[in-house]
Amino acid sequence: MIKQADQLNFDVLTEMRGGKGEVKVIKLLENDEFHGKGRLFARNVIKPGCSIGFHQHAGDFETYYVLSGEGLVDDNGVKAVVKAGDVIYTNAGESHSIENTGTADLEVIALILYA
Amino acid sequence: MIKQADQLNFDVLTEMRGGKGEVKVIKLLENDEFHGKGRLFARNVIKPGCSIGFHQHAGDFETYYVLSGEGLVDDNGVKAVVKAGDVIYTNAGESHSIENTGTADLEVIALILYA
Repeated sequence: MIKQADQLNFDVLTEMRGGKGEVKVIKLLENDEFHGKGRLFARNVIKPGCSIGFHQHAGDFETYYVLSGEGLVDDNGVKAVVKAGDVIYTNAGESHSIENTGTADLEVIALILYA
Repeated sequence: MIKQADQLNFDVLTEMRGGKGEVKVIKLLENDEFHGKGRLFARNVIKPGCSIGFHQHAGDFETYYVLSGEGLVDDNGVKAVVKAGDVIYTNAGESHSIENTGTADLEVIALILYA
C-alpha cells in the first residue's frame, strides 16, 4: 500500500511532554499497522525555539533520527548538540528531551517500539 | 545514547534482493537494540539506475519512507512512482521492489518489524 505525502495524518501538539511551542507529528504508520510491536513511527517537525519536554520511556523505547536542523538533546541526563544524521536511542526506563536551538526547522524521525 | 552520523555502521550491498547495482544501508539501530521486535531500521541510499529487487516479506513487514529522490515501486504487483514524503507499506505476505528512476540519489528510511 502506498500513502502519498499529502495523505498522511498528522497532529499538531502544543507543549508536547511539557515542552515549548508546537510540534507537528506526521504519522508514517497508523496504530493498527504495527502488528502490536510499537506505537509511533513519525516525522516530527519542531520549529525554532520549540521542544519536546523531558520524559521517561517506561515499557517502550524510542529512537530519534535527525533529518535536518540542529538541536539540544537531554539524553537521560547528559546534554548534547545533535545535527542531521545523528541517532538518539532512549532505552526503556531512560528519559530524553529535544529542543530546536537553530534557526531552521528541526526534523526527526521518531520510532517508539515496545520493550 | 547518541550515535553521531559518522559512527553509524553501514553495508554496501550489491544486487540487493536481485536488484541492480549497489545500495548503501546505513543502520540506525543494531540488531540487539530492537528488543526482538524487528531486524532493520536503516537509511537506504539507492543511486540512479540501482534498485532493490522484488521480494516477499514472510513473518515480517516493511515500511519505506522516501526522504529524497524519485523511484518506481512495485507494490505487491502494482507499479507506482514515488517521491519524497511517500510511504510504502508492505505487509507480511506481500512483496515489493524499488528502483531509482531519477537523476539524484533515492533515499528511503526502511523499517522491518516482525509480524
